[in-house]
Amino acid sequence: MKARHALMLATAMLSAGAAQAQFQKPEDAVKYRQSAFSVMGTHFSRLGAMANGKVPFDANKAQEDAAVVLMLSRLPWAGFTPDTQKLESKTKPALWTEMDKVKIGADKLMTAAVALDAAAKTGNLDAIKKSFGEAAATCKACHDSYKSK
Amino acid sequence: MKARHALMLATAMLSAGAAQAQFQKPEDAVKYRQSAFSVMGTHFSRLGAMANGKVPFDANKAQEDAAVVLMLSRLPWAGFTPDTQKLESKTKPALWTEMDKVKIGADKLMTAAVALDAAAKTGNLDAIKKSFGEAAATCKACHDSYKSK
Repeated sequence: MKARHALMLATAMLSAGAAQAQFQKPEDAVKYRQSAFSVMGTHFSRLGAMANGKVPFDANKAQEDAAVVLMLSRLPWAGFTPDTQKLESKTKPALWTEMDKVKIGADKLMTAAVALDAAAKTGNLDAIKKSFGEAAATCKACHDSYKSK
Repeated sequence: MKARHALMLATAMLSAGAAQAQFQKPEDAVKYRQSAFSVMGTHFSRLGAMANGKVPFDANKAQEDAAVVLMLSRLPWAGFTPDTQKLESKTKPALWTEMDKVKIGADKLMTAAVALDAAAKTGNLDAIKKSFGEAAATCKACHDSYKSK
């Protein structure tokens, strides 16, 4: 699991680098990252609703949501290409000068998404709650520092 | 594989039904489906660029792209909730009156995405080209009928 995980992160980061040439226009990169965050956020919120007891726990749905979050967690980073800095978005200026920290933050989310997916596969709500909380903290850390409200 | 596939489609369709209550506002459902289509389209286009020889074939990237397309192919349908019909989007009026056909079209795309993912896993470019073409035809069929330009 550890090896697979390390490989996955390495792959995601390599893809992020290689993907810079894969957007035809900077606007496409912004749309891509915003779309990936949006879909991830929808499924993450659904997990949260179950974790927080707002909707009944459904192990199958939780597993589906976590699988989507895991897949999407690898994607948006490629959209933070330097040529998008000038475009309107919710990024704070610090994001562009602290890209090393952003990458560490992205890595933490991807790691947390792996754990959340593993927890969801157990079908154990307590395990999901714990992993959800840890993953949510990684979202908040970057949003506080790098995303305007 | 067939059983897993059938289960996946059934799950996706059930999720689509159950998910109608999962968007707080109709606007959220529109944003969700548009975001899912957008991310799927980005990765599908990258596969197309390889399939059409516009960029060098990279088996690992093709596999990653196909996995994203497969995951995303299951998602946007849940965003076509009846309460979004009144909102501005690129849906043609026929989409809302021919939802049974839309569902058949969605099913065809999901089936094609399973085949494309399987082809990408073989690393065989010819197999990917064939599956890509078949998947692209399912996109076009619905876009021609139900999406404004």
